[in-house]
Amino acid sequence: MSAQPVCLVIGAGAGIGGTVGKRFAREGYHAVLCRRSDGAGLAKLVEAIEGEGGQASGFLMNAIEDSAIEDRVAHVEAEIGPIEVVIYNLGAQIGNRALSDTSDKAFEMGWRLATFGLFRLAKAVCPLMVDRGRGTMIVTSATAAVRGNAGQHSHAAAMGGRRLLCQTLNAELSPKNIHVAHVVVDGSVDAPDTLGRMLGPERFQALRETKGAEDGLMLPERIADTYWHIAQQHRSVWTHELDVRSFSDLPWWNH
Amino acid sequence: MSAQPVCLVIGAGAGIGGTVGKRFAREGYHAVLCRRSDGAGLAKLVEAIEGEGGQASGFLMNAIEDSAIEDRVAHVEAEIGPIEVVIYNLGAQIGNRALSDTSDKAFEMGWRLATFGLFRLAKAVCPLMVDRGRGTMIVTSATAAVRGNAGQHSHAAAMGGRRLLCQTLNAELSPKNIHVAHVVVDGSVDAPDTLGRMLGPERFQALRETKGAEDGLMLPERIADTYWHIAQQHRSVWTHELDVRSFSDLPWWNH
Amino acid sequence: MSAQPVCLVIGAGAGIGGTVGKRFAREGYHAVLCRRSDGAGLAKLVEAIEGEGGQASGFLMNAIEDSAIEDRVAHVEAEIGPIEVVIYNLGAQIGNRALSDTSDKAFEMGWRLATFGLFRLAKAVCPLMVDRGRGTMIVTSATAAVRGNAGQHSHAAAMGGRRLLCQTLNAELSPKNIHVAHVVVDGSVDAPDTLGRMLGPERFQALRETKGAEDGLMLPERIADTYWHIAQQHRSVWTHELDVRSFSDLPWWNH
Amino acid sequence: MSAQPVCLVIGAGAGIGGTVGKRFAREGYHAVLCRRSDGAGLAKLVEAIEGEGGQASGFLMNAIEDSAIEDRVAHVEAEIGPIEVVIYNLGAQIGNRALSDTSDKAFEMGWRLATFGLFRLAKAVCPLMVDRGRGTMIVTSATAAVRGNAGQHSHAAAMGGRRLLCQTLNAELSPKNIHVAHVVVDGSVDAPDTLGRMLGPERFQALRETKGAEDGLMLPERIADTYWHIAQQHRSVWTHELDVRSFSDLPWWNH
Repeated sequence: MSAQPVCLVIGAGAGIGGTVGKRFAREGYHAVLCRRSDGAGLAKLVEAIEGEGGQASGFLMNAIEDSAIEDRVAHVEAEIGPIEVVIYNLGAQIGNRALSDTSDKAFEMGWRLATFGLFRLAKAVCPLMVDRGRGTMIVTSATAAVRGNAGQHSHAAAMGGRRLLCQTLNAELSPKNIHVAHVVVDGSVDAPDTLGRMLGPERFQALRETKGAEDGLMLPERIADTYWHIAQQHRSVWTHELDVRSFSDLPWWNH
Repeated sequence: MSAQPVCLVIGAGAGIGGTVGKRFAREGYHAVLCRRSDGAGLAKLVEAIEGEGGQASGFLMNAIEDSAIEDRVAHVEAEIGPIEVVIYNLGAQIGNRALSDTSDKAFEMGWRLATFGLFRLAKAVCPLMVDRGRGTMIVTSATAAVRGNAGQHSHAAAMGGRRLLCQTLNAELSPKNIHVAHVVVDGSVDAPDTLGRMLGPERFQALRETKGAEDGLMLPERIADTYWHIAQQHRSVWTHELDVRSFSDLPWWNH
Repeated sequence: MSAQPVCLVIGAGAGIGGTVGKRFAREGYHAVLCRRSDGAGLAKLVEAIEGEGGQASGFLMNAIEDSAIEDRVAHVEAEIGPIEVVIYNLGAQIGNRALSDTSDKAFEMGWRLATFGLFRLAKAVCPLMVDRGRGTMIVTSATAAVRGNAGQHSHAAAMGGRRLLCQTLNAELSPKNIHVAHVVVDGSVDAPDTLGRMLGPERFQALRETKGAEDGLMLPERIADTYWHIAQQHRSVWTHELDVRSFSDLPWWNH
Repeated sequence: MSAQPVCLVIGAGAGIGGTVGKRFAREGYHAVLCRRSDGAGLAKLVEAIEGEGGQASGFLMNAIEDSAIEDRVAHVEAEIGPIEVVIYNLGAQIGNRALSDTSDKAFEMGWRLATFGLFRLAKAVCPLMVDRGRGTMIVTSATAAVRGNAGQHSHAAAMGGRRLLCQTLNAELSPKNIHVAHVVVDGSVDAPDTLGRMLGPERFQALRETKGAEDGLMLPERIADTYWHIAQQHRSVWTHELDVRSFSDLPWWNH
């Protein structure tokens, strides 16, 4: 068992998830990092944290498998320590697809990743937090949680559900001293794993430069600052929802 | 084949769904009424419409069964006539339940009824409408589509997804001359089948009277007026979202 | 005194205002049409209504002048008849202007037209409606009421205030059987007086044609259908807010 | 001239405004504190900051007077230093009043304090920030900016305008490296000057205790933490809007 409180990250790639985990490790948490694939990348992330003197564990996990989330939570609580902070960072963006090109399976997958997975996580971890009388759950969300653009049938339906689920969780859990926050990431993140892979190296680098010098894409390290702040907010002034975007981007409501 | 255009109602009980079907039948549509159970009630509704000189067909259908929606659409198009208007009226309210009392199954069921069913319906019927160059889809929605209250984990997640799905459908289909409307029914409907059964006859009658004489609960006949208006709107002035509630009720944002 | 109920229109030009007045006149109301300038156009509108067998009166009125609204309401009630429906249709769009090009005066003017005028109207007419136990107030609004775009400092601040004022009016008046509705006109209206004048005849005609044949701009006659429907809604199913736009336009949240 | 950057606070009472000023002073800013009255309280606040080794100046200022804001900005820039951060913290809550009890003057006063004052401040200070290529403007806002409750005619209209003005300011200024943030303070602040005076000492103390021990009211010191965080956000991840409330309070959308 770790003497440190645990920060569990579901969806810990090289973008927001892993970077937030690293930040919490730097602040004294044991970062438990879960991602679906790329064991090598995961190992590298754990090493990087340990190299800084932090504590971390990494697990490959397919969140949509039966009981994968539930078992991971139970294992972490039993073997590592009490989960004080949980970051839900699974995305479900599949790019724009016309209705006829959006299969039932893709639509369901969006829901399993973006909505149902969060519900299962909340059911697994929140009762433990309630028993301990405290906890923090930060949910990474997206523009698609607040508007449905063309081609986003799967993603917007899933994220719209996620957003309202965050509200129902907050309504039940906030009076029990559990802070639930929904972060609308309204723009492109400088994430080689997801956006970088989707665009390919050349277009990704071009986008980085077009959007405004070195910081037109959202920098995960700086998003992590805000996640850390949310987790530090005094309970008399909790934020439930906030947006983040680059200075050089238009907010979703302006375009 | 009917000489009349078809208005297909998914969720045609004695509240909004059946009443809207009756209204469209009165205006010259062949009402195709689908509901999960109560064949006797369904037959009675069909008879009532026919007794007024209208055309109607009734089908028992469990919308969450594989291909139930898709088969029904195909059958109606083949045997009755082109679906010009479709009303999606399936609810997923299960009352307030704490997180620990909301099973995975209940959560999934909410999504299957409120979100996935609409997606499947849209996939089945909208390509036909696109081919014909016109169509109308009106989706009954609820307060839970715009805010997540305590105990509404399943319902709000499902309805929040439904709302944004309506937006993505609208974004793709409106330029193709298909009108998609999302109706936020923000209050209690005078529906013996659903609210009445949930409350029991005495509490139901008491609520009817408490809320302000004979019209404190929302009258389905009068909701049908607005559905009919939406379907009649000229395409230069389509409404995508509107709310409806009783004069004696507070809007969701005021309480 | 007129035997007919009065529909008072504040902002009765050749677009939405005048057309809604005409529609209510056709349905048996005495239309009282107020606009700031163009007495000839106003006289023509009154004649057109009377030529159809309807009743109408026209008044030039500068709504921002002290007591102009209050006096008009008092006069109408004393000389013509009880105001059963009031349409507030004053716009405050001045085109996009940078902060440095938006004078204090322009900013204040926006508020006087879009927000304060509505407040004054409500103070003048609603107590009379409360005494009579019924009434309808329909407020034309704009995209700028729900989002603040670049260059819209004056307009968006004024319309954002107007929208929330409609909510506070509704909260107080709805239980007293007065229907307050806020209509988000989310697009360009085929209005020669305002848009036509702003663009000039050639660009206006080009826009009409570009946006999709004869009905890409919103047709005032068809907007009037929806205003009429709102005024006819049964009080058990009142709509407070709805949007309208052309099928060929993107909703504000999609662009 | 101060060697330190200036944080200008408009509305620097003993609640959020003064406390935020103190916090920025502690972080190395020269706090310029403006409030309408209570010169003794203001002097005490300046002394407290200086007693901690910080820099501060206090000015009595009636923001609604002609050129009061503009002159103050010019004076600060000329005599103290460049304004890097500005906090707009003027409230306009006058308690719930029926329409008939809300005078034209009270309605206008709400707008002058909550909307027009912010516009004037932005016109005075933002061009200077644009010239310097950076700046931060944080606007304290309220529940009334997002919904209009009964009795809030003046407040909600003013705050609804303020919110959309923040959006238009952000749309123009964000690309110029000026961070505009709108903070929805959704609950009661532990502010003796405003809430305390409105309630009287006994009811105020009772509320403090009722809401959940020592921290049911929002603690200004802790709100200041979030204001400081906003001002520190990297420009690739700016927040435009966030809410804050006590764990023991319901969010505005839940009640």
